[in-house]
This record gives sequence, structure tokens and C-alpha cells, in this order.
Amino acid sequence: MKVAILGGGQLAAMMAESGLPMGLDFVFLDPARDACAGRYGQLIVADWTEAAGAAEVLECDCITCDFENVPANILESLAHGRIVRPDPTAFASAQDRLVEKQLLESLDIPLSPFAPVSSRPELLEALDRIGYPAVLKTRRLGYDGKGQYVLHGKEDLEPAWSALEGQDLVLEGWVDFVHECAVTAVRSASGEIRFYPTSWTFHSGGILRLARAPASMSQALIDRAQGMVERLMTGLNYAGCLTLELFVTDRGVLANEFAPRVHNSAHWTIEAACTSQFENHLRAVCDLPLGQTDARGHALMLNWVGELPDPAVLLEVPGLSWHDYRKAPRPGRKLGHATIVADSGTELNARVDAVRDRLPPQWSTWLAKAGLSLA
Amino acid sequence: MKVAILGGGQLAAMMAESGLPMGLDFVFLDPARDACAGRYGQLIVADWTEAAGAAEVLECDCITCDFENVPANILESLAHGRIVRPDPTAFASAQDRLVEKQLLESLDIPLSPFAPVSSRPELLEALDRIGYPAVLKTRRLGYDGKGQYVLHGKEDLEPAWSALEGQDLVLEGWVDFVHECAVTAVRSASGEIRFYPTSWTFHSGGILRLARAPASMSQALIDRAQGMVERLMTGLNYAGCLTLELFVTDRGVLANEFAPRVHNSAHWTIEAACTSQFENHLRAVCDLPLGQTDARGHALMLNWVGELPDPAVLLEVPGLSWHDYRKAPRPGRKLGHATIVADSGTELNARVDAVRDRLPPQWSTWLAKAGLSLA
Repeated sequence: MKVAILGGGQLAAMMAESGLPMGLDFVFLDPARDACAGRYGQLIVADWTEAAGAAEVLECDCITCDFENVPANILESLAHGRIVRPDPTAFASAQDRLVEKQLLESLDIPLSPFAPVSSRPELLEALDRIGYPAVLKTRRLGYDGKGQYVLHGKEDLEPAWSALEGQDLVLEGWVDFVHECAVTAVRSASGEIRFYPTSWTFHSGGILRLARAPASMSQALIDRAQGMVERLMTGLNYAGCLTLELFVTDRGVLANEFAPRVHNSAHWTIEAACTSQFENHLRAVCDLPLGQTDARGHALMLNWVGELPDPAVLLEVPGLSWHDYRKAPRPGRKLGHATIVADSGTELNARVDAVRDRLPPQWSTWLAKAGLSLA
Repeated sequence: MKVAILGGGQLAAMMAESGLPMGLDFVFLDPARDACAGRYGQLIVADWTEAAGAAEVLECDCITCDFENVPANILESLAHGRIVRPDPTAFASAQDRLVEKQLLESLDIPLSPFAPVSSRPELLEALDRIGYPAVLKTRRLGYDGKGQYVLHGKEDLEPAWSALEGQDLVLEGWVDFVHECAVTAVRSASGEIRFYPTSWTFHSGGILRLARAPASMSQALIDRAQGMVERLMTGLNYAGCLTLELFVTDRGVLANEFAPRVHNSAHWTIEAACTSQFENHLRAVCDLPLGQTDARGHALMLNWVGELPDPAVLLEVPGLSWHDYRKAPRPGRKLGHATIVADSGTELNARVDAVRDRLPPQWSTWLAKAGLSLA
């Protein structure tokens, strides 16, 4: 069976790493000549708009994406007579923050108040209703904190407006969260849903730095979060893995945004779930039986952003697995990750201490802020 | 870091599957144009004798093997000024059953009585000493039961002799074993040894069919078997993974043979050990810190020999992982394997039942003979 993946980044590479041993073959389409998944199959270097004309893609048994911003209309045209999973409608929603929020609202999924903003009067009106602090974001193509401005008060208004003016925007009420979390689930083409244990996530500078699972959260909160994901997947008639990022507040959980693909917050599933999100995404899109999503022990994932630490030093830590995406270093770029696995939360904490001692001090701060370390 | 692997079969492919995500690169040398590891790096199609002249191999940071019959003299010539791990002497011993047995004996590792045989009078003399039943084997290039004849009595002598006459042979006393097992361990270049849990193995027609781990054996037997492996690895100043296959008899454990490479009886370590044998072999040969060898749950591996069953049916079984080596089907050829993992032995047994119901009846017989199923 041959799978076409639109996008050839590390998510596509990790799908291939789980699918190749199972006998699946891959074709990747990516605008970048050095797309890191290229080593795992044929890489078609082309713009997204050329996908519908790429015979190598069209000949595949099914088509999926490692990037949520593959234009939805391209996916829709591919879906005529071909299997595209997840369905292009999921991409259409995820690509526009306003449409996404309207979809979540229509599915009775609680989220922070929001308003579309396309003019200065609309912005002022939205701020009147939502109040400070609030976040002004582009509706499209924002990721890892890009295209976002936090408005703490009137003094932040002008710089944000002059940076974003002319784009379609959305204003969101600021969420004073206790921590963030993410729910990843897989849904088969026939509608079976399996949830991974919830990931406890920590961002800095808008970029995910740490994810720990299973999150220590009350079952009531987890049930509520999983209920949201179930409504979302069912509403979208979804097939594959999806992640919903959430805020945990004093008054419960609020949806933040979802990604219609495998997701960074569930990379820990490679080592610490029975079946990884990557394998389960492939099982779902290829119409194979879903694998178990149970955790195998406790895991912490650390993202390497901008530069890779020395693996030889970190591999001394028991239970640590190393992932090098082989991407050219660039500030803010995700270059790799490590996952530490242990049988218990206590053992994991001891191993996290051993990792912290081998990393720059910034990591101590993050681990402490994330509530994952006392140091 | 770039690793050259002499041999490009499924063992090389599985090393690459564990090493590529870590950032290692691979060059394979194999006489077969369709060597299945080829998809994971550069494949040099060449005879073993050409290895010393292959610039792509010589430029690598270290050289290892997926095949124990790469001629030891080739490895020795490569080792001048280059890192070849494990040391060529391990291959020289493993390639000749007589030398292997003499080495084991010299290291005080118990094994069945044996005698070199190069003539009919020598065979008769050896049979006088060792007695029936005995096994007559070629000293070189036998594997998966090839080049072996069991001599139950005088009537078996002529057919065996006429088939093997002219080759260097060894006669071994027949071992009336209760079951077979295998100990896999990894040793770093600096001499640290870590043992994987012992595998309980079952062969049919000379080919490994099933491996279960951790084996339910007394700690005393396991300690004795591990002591043998420790003496062997230390004696060879070994770096990398090694497997010693053993017979468990009423009177203790006897060594059968060892393989100076990753081994089929430890494929279960991919899913059910903290660090797989493939990753640990690479860590050892690349001089990286060794990974943990502890089991994660209980595992049963089933070898697909000659033909592959339908994965879509077997993937319904919880905890089952699928490995397709993408080799052209041929009778007696190992084409893939599956590993079933469970948290406990009892849960594993239930899953084995579910697998048995989905496989041809031959498997029920093997599972029962292996003591792994009551059906």
C-alpha cells in the first residue's frame, strides 16, 4: 500500500518511520527541496497547487497531510475519486481561526470569547465586548506564536494594529490558564474513536517546549476534554489522528485550537503508547484496524528548538530516546526532540532531574514553570 | 555519524529503522541487488571481497555486519586503521562450528560433546565416543538447519555421509532438551555489559518460529546462562549485541551456538524492551552510552517464513506490531514477523489465543509444542 503525504517535514518523516517497517510505501510532496522526509520515499518538489497534477501522488492508495495549511481547495480537488483522509473540510476549518472557532462553538465546545476583526472600528468594538487582555491574531497561516499580538492595554493597540492591518484578523479573550494540555485521538473511517492519555503541555515564546503524559488532571476534566474531541471528530466525519489543544483554567477546560494531523504534543506516543500517533494515523487513513492508545509508563518530551544538544551526553539518561530531524539549524526551528520514559511518575521525575543537569539553565526555568520540576 | 553495514538484509534494515531517527546514516554492502535494507541508505552491490575497496564503506565512522559469514579476513583487513565492531575475531570463531565449540570449551562454557570429522574413520570413531543420537553438521555456512543431519542410528549414517562427504564436518552429541532459549546482551567498547531478559525460543524445521520473553525460567538457570555470555563477550573483547542460543535440559543449560550480531530471537526488543537490540548494537558500535535492556511487559514474536499472513486481520489483535521485510516470497525464507506485547503473561496468553484463531492450524501445533498455548 502506498501513501502520499502532502508536506515532507518531520511529521511526515515520523509517519514513514512507523509505516515503512509495516510494509507501507511513501511519496512526499513538498515545496522544499531539502524536506527531511525525503530520505524515506520519493520526494516531489512542487508547490501545493501542483499536487493535483502529480501522477506519483494520484497513483497512491490514499493521500494525507503533515501540514494543516495545504490549501483545502487542493485537497478537495484531489478527493474527487481518491481517498483523502482526513476529509478536506477539516483543513478548511483549521486553516482559518474564525471558521475554526465558529465550528467549535457550533459543536458546543467551550472556548474563549472571540470576534472577527477586519477594520479598526471592528477591533475597538470587539475590545469593548471582550475586554483587555486579549490576543489579536491573523485568521490564516499563524503557527508557533507567529502573527499574534497580546493586547494588555490600550498602549499595545497601535503596534499590533500597524503590524497586522490589512489582514483578516480575529480577537480572542485572554485566557488566564493554570496550564495547557492537549488531547490526541484517532478515529477510523468507520467511526471508532480511541483517545490517547491527555498530554500536559508547556509553551515558551509560542513554541511547544515540553509535553508530559499522562497528564495529572482530574478524570472529570479529562472526560470533558475528550467529549469535546469526540464531538469535533464526529462533526467533521474525521479519519486519522487529531489533536485539540486546551487551556486548563480555574473554571474548567477551554478549547484553544485543533490540528487535523499528527501533533507535536503527542510525539511521546512513539515510545510510551502501545501504538504511536504516527502508526495509528496511518492505520486510520489506510483503513487498517486501529491500534491501542494506552500509555506504557510515564513520558516527558523535550523539543529541541533552534539547536540540538549533544546526544552523547543525554543518551546517558536511562529511558531517553533521541530524535534528530536532520534539519538545518535556524532560530525558532524545531530540529529534534527527546522522550524520556519511566515506569512511574516518581521515576520519571528522577530522570528529568538527570536531564536537567545536562541542559542549559533555560530548561530548569521551563521545567519549573511547567510544574515538572522543583529546581 | 555514518555506519557501514556489511549485509543488507532485514537485520540491517531494522538497525537502520532504529538508527535513522537518531540521526545516524547508513551505507550497506550486499551481493544482492534487491537487498531489503537498500531503501534506508546507499546500497553498494558487491561481493564481500570487494568491501575493502569500496570508498563509501571506508569513509564511514564505523563498520559492522548483519551477517556472521562475512569472511573474517575481509573484516580484518578493514579493521586496519578503521573501527570494525564487533572485532573480526568474533566472526572467525562464529564462522566455523569447530572453532566456535573449541572457544566455548576454552571459556568453560558447557556444551554437548563434539568432535571434528573429516573422514569416514573419524566419523565412526567420533560416534563410538559420542554415541547415537548425534548430529553431523558442516563446519561452515550452515544456518536455519541447512547442512545438518541427525543420526538416530546406523541406518542414518550412509545418507548423511554421502550428502556431506568432502566438507569439513563436526559431530555433536544430540541434546535431549526440554526447551531452547537465547540470551542476548550488549557490550560497550569500554566493557560494560547489559543483558536482555532471556528469550524462550521454538524452532521447527531448523528455523526459529517463536520467541517469548521474558522466559519463565529459574533465576539460577538465567544466571548460569548470562555467566556464559559474559565470559564469551569478555573473552572476545566484544562490542555490540551478541546472542547465545542454549538448550535447557533436565540437568541444566548447555550452549548451542552464538551469533556475533543482532539476532532473530531478540526482535521482540523493538516493542518490548526499553532500548531495542538494534539501537543498542548501534549505540555500542558508535561508542554512545548503552540504553536500558529491561523488558517492557511480556512479548511473543512470530516469524513469517515462506509467506506473509494478511496483516489487516492480525492487526485487530491488541498489542500486535507488524514487520514486513519486503522480500520476495520463497519457501523457508524469513519474510517478516509480528510481535505481540501485553502488560502481563496472562494478558499475553489471551492475545496469543486471538492470534492463533487468525492463523493456519500449523501455528496451534507450534504454540502448543513451544509450551505457549494449551490449545
